[in-house]
Amino acid sequence: MIEYAILHYPESKYCYAKNTRELALRIRIAKEDFPKIFVIYGGKYEFALKQLEHEMERTYEDRLYAYYTVSLKLNDPRVVYIFKIVEDNKIYYFSEDGLSKEYDFSLSFYNCFQYSYLNACDILETVEWMKEAVFYQIFVDRFLMGNEKKDKSYINLEWGSKPNPKSFAGGDLEGIITKLDYIKSLGVNVIYLTPIFKSISNHKYDISNYYEVDEMFGNKKVLKELVKECHKRKIRLILDAVFNHTSENLQEFQDVKLKKHESKYYDWFIVNSDEPFTYECFASCQYMPKFNTSNEDVENYLINIGCYWIKEFDIDGWRLDVSDEVSHRFWRKFREAIKNTKRDAVLIGENWHDANVYLQGDQYDSIMNYAFTKSALDFYAFQKLDAKELANKLNSLLVRNSDQVNTMMLNLLDSHDTLRFYTEVKKNDNKLMSALALLFMYPGVPCIYYGTENKMEGGYDPDSRRTMDWSLENKNLDIKDLIRSLASLKKEIRDSEARIYALDDLLYIERYHDYKKWILVINNTKEKKIVAINKLIASNNYEGNILKPNGFVITKIK
Amino acid sequence: MIEYAILHYPESKYCYAKNTRELALRIRIAKEDFPKIFVIYGGKYEFALKQLEHEMERTYEDRLYAYYTVSLKLNDPRVVYIFKIVEDNKIYYFSEDGLSKEYDFSLSFYNCFQYSYLNACDILETVEWMKEAVFYQIFVDRFLMGNEKKDKSYINLEWGSKPNPKSFAGGDLEGIITKLDYIKSLGVNVIYLTPIFKSISNHKYDISNYYEVDEMFGNKKVLKELVKECHKRKIRLILDAVFNHTSENLQEFQDVKLKKHESKYYDWFIVNSDEPFTYECFASCQYMPKFNTSNEDVENYLINIGCYWIKEFDIDGWRLDVSDEVSHRFWRKFREAIKNTKRDAVLIGENWHDANVYLQGDQYDSIMNYAFTKSALDFYAFQKLDAKELANKLNSLLVRNSDQVNTMMLNLLDSHDTLRFYTEVKKNDNKLMSALALLFMYPGVPCIYYGTENKMEGGYDPDSRRTMDWSLENKNLDIKDLIRSLASLKKEIRDSEARIYALDDLLYIERYHDYKKWILVINNTKEKKIVAINKLIASNNYEGNILKPNGFVITKIK
Repeated sequence: MIEYAILHYPESKYCYAKNTRELALRIRIAKEDFPKIFVIYGGKYEFALKQLEHEMERTYEDRLYAYYTVSLKLNDPRVVYIFKIVEDNKIYYFSEDGLSKEYDFSLSFYNCFQYSYLNACDILETVEWMKEAVFYQIFVDRFLMGNEKKDKSYINLEWGSKPNPKSFAGGDLEGIITKLDYIKSLGVNVIYLTPIFKSISNHKYDISNYYEVDEMFGNKKVLKELVKECHKRKIRLILDAVFNHTSENLQEFQDVKLKKHESKYYDWFIVNSDEPFTYECFASCQYMPKFNTSNEDVENYLINIGCYWIKEFDIDGWRLDVSDEVSHRFWRKFREAIKNTKRDAVLIGENWHDANVYLQGDQYDSIMNYAFTKSALDFYAFQKLDAKELANKLNSLLVRNSDQVNTMMLNLLDSHDTLRFYTEVKKNDNKLMSALALLFMYPGVPCIYYGTENKMEGGYDPDSRRTMDWSLENKNLDIKDLIRSLASLKKEIRDSEARIYALDDLLYIERYHDYKKWILVINNTKEKKIVAINKLIASNNYEGNILKPNGFVITKIK
Repeated sequence: MIEYAILHYPESKYCYAKNTRELALRIRIAKEDFPKIFVIYGGKYEFALKQLEHEMERTYEDRLYAYYTVSLKLNDPRVVYIFKIVEDNKIYYFSEDGLSKEYDFSLSFYNCFQYSYLNACDILETVEWMKEAVFYQIFVDRFLMGNEKKDKSYINLEWGSKPNPKSFAGGDLEGIITKLDYIKSLGVNVIYLTPIFKSISNHKYDISNYYEVDEMFGNKKVLKELVKECHKRKIRLILDAVFNHTSENLQEFQDVKLKKHESKYYDWFIVNSDEPFTYECFASCQYMPKFNTSNEDVENYLINIGCYWIKEFDIDGWRLDVSDEVSHRFWRKFREAIKNTKRDAVLIGENWHDANVYLQGDQYDSIMNYAFTKSALDFYAFQKLDAKELANKLNSLLVRNSDQVNTMMLNLLDSHDTLRFYTEVKKNDNKLMSALALLFMYPGVPCIYYGTENKMEGGYDPDSRRTMDWSLENKNLDIKDLIRSLASLKKEIRDSEARIYALDDLLYIERYHDYKKWILVINNTKEKKIVAINKLIASNNYEGNILKPNGFVITKIK
């Protein structure tokens, strides 16, 4: 057995509460080892005398490691445990002190693992509706102009032309209201909008008034109408919270710019020098000064904004822009305030990297899963991963976080911050459809960037933010039908268990709960493969037991 | 190279901010590998174009692994990085995607490591005075009776007799005031008292009024006097906060017991059933009901208590009883309130296990380091560890937490909750003295349990809580002189770097900063060893370059 590979941390993704009487455990070992692993556990105050034992299941494998898991139902919320690893009739114990051939339970209070008390307020609960959520992301200026009567003098882009960074095309909230039935028809039940508050830019990530809807996009009345019409159709609405930075036009920043040290908002920002006036900002964009979220007034200002739009407009959550540069302390306070305002509001961070430290239950619920995006690109577009390697990669992403978080991860193929996936795969329809199947079958919440259903193309920003071509509304029915089927399937699968592996160069994703099981098979090779199935749910490039190159098939086993 | 062993997590003990422009990094590899390791780092928004490189140092080794470390001074608080590992002229890169032979910096935004922004409010600051703190723990009822005029009817133990669980010996706060000069003479500068608030027990871990000093021990006036006399002598005072549970005599609990669901305090506790009345408690002690710290009223009640004794009595921090069973959310709020009240108040949890999750900067500063206790016992008392194994173990404890936390860890040989160390080593004076040298030279804060300086004996609770024998006040001068020298040395060493290793069966602890270096050598074998030193600081069983069995020597190198 390769001892180097064995890893477990208490109160972490390796040991987390699902509720006040259920504890999930994981232990990592080398992939080439195949021991039996048991958890020996018990109440904290009786472990020396009384131990229970439960075998663990080998659930995930990535490139180097295998992960065994178990979920324990507890009588006592104070649980301690060690692992028993059995290989070739040899028994090892794994505790805080590492691997040993013997274990003295009478001194276990010194070195067993523990989850000392499963306190309710520390436990991350899955937002129930996220289990069957299907997101649709809209870059508002480019979706549809609904209000033909508004002052259009700001519009400088002809609908259908390619945008530049300063383009305004006229899309607005009324346009979205007009198309809610269309969006609904795709099976979507959550709409996520890029920012809509007062700002001079087309993207509105530089907000100068957080309490106003920008007049290019509408006003508060129209937003209320949008929420009402969404909710009427059982669609939820998520807005974009830009709290890392603001616009230089924010009144409080202008005050600092004018009065410097004399301004009462001086500490709202991170001023490096008064003369010349320099300050921390987003990236190197001087027009986007960074908020100092170590300042309590700033914390309260932003928290009040977060709560205001939920309380007054009943939105269903926030996507958190550049969330990884904002302090943890802020997100903790923000979460508590938001969840106290609307318990099932969802908080989704924009973290491009492993965000486990933000996803412990005290900060946000989920992130935009760009690591999934990268995996899908490496597999479909860049040919950097074969099926086996993709399976390894997708498993390694699942063990980054708890099951509750995995269920809420916002998985995406592309967004306003990447190239369009369809462009990355060189307009290969089969690859797009296969990737959509992967997107919906992988644990988490699928998020479709507007226009994907019309095979919209686009390079890097601003090209990925082209205007929606509504002449295609009733075209591309193969893609639209597929999305509809997958969305319908997602509502069945919900947060089912997942097993991901490769066989014969094919990628398999199995999802199952109770007596139901769904299997996705993806052929990303250049060869035909024989895949015999019983009950076809969805497919592309699959005929008579033959799965062609870039084809996929989903089947259901009762 | 053993790839299985390589480990790094962003924003963790492997990557933490020391201040807003300094980042500490660690990476773990297999101990048998000896590559050169470099960190390649840069600003988050320019890493694709511009990278800096810094070699890392092999700092710690435990049984299986070696740890390389580096501390980076940054211009930009948004830092990203990967590791470069060079072995036998082969170059490897280690990123979020694991080990690879090539690395594409142009796509690094997908898979480099990052510490996205070093926000001031998230960074754990070392409490400055903890760098030279020497603690003395007092179990109040057993130290000294100072107030001869009080109602002594509760006293049932003759001073000097062995206590049972229900014994009252009469020790009090006035007794401690009387002996402050004695305590000071040992080099002690922090006194930590077990609980002093209203309670019917001798240990007072079942508090029925958190706003009263128990009359057995004194009153608020005497506490004020104690704090004043301590501070006059530059001694700080830490009290014991029992917030996991309370006494069944607490008014609010009595109200629940009487009115059940009708009580407005019903949710202050975790009632399992009204009839028969059952509830969660500490261990299985029905007289100590557990607080429900998922309830905000309870949180505020306890936070107010924590702040009250600091604001009104100017105490210098809290030791937090059974802190690991209280919610993380509570400790976060508690920390913020306490630090806002007194910025350099210290918070020390009672966690017997790896507590890294509590020591991120948002909860407490330090814990009682019982893992150190266990290591010292395994080495000196149980002969389970030789010098090499102890070095491994002591290093493994250092990599559990950040340097800031290590500087504040409360290291102890024993306490009211263990057997007396002197009893564990079978009254071996040399072992006690050697262990004291280890205690003071190991990174962190040494804590001496009252009476250790008099070689006090004692088995498990209540025997480890015997009365102090004041006839020995001017005896055992070898031990007392040693403690005095070590305390004086500690004030020089402060938070110096540490290197711990074994050579020729001897344990070495080196501490160094700037051009100073101190070395402790411990011989725990049965043989004499030759150890030639230049400048003797302290020693026992050391003569003419010969370090005898159970001897130690401390030297200073300029």
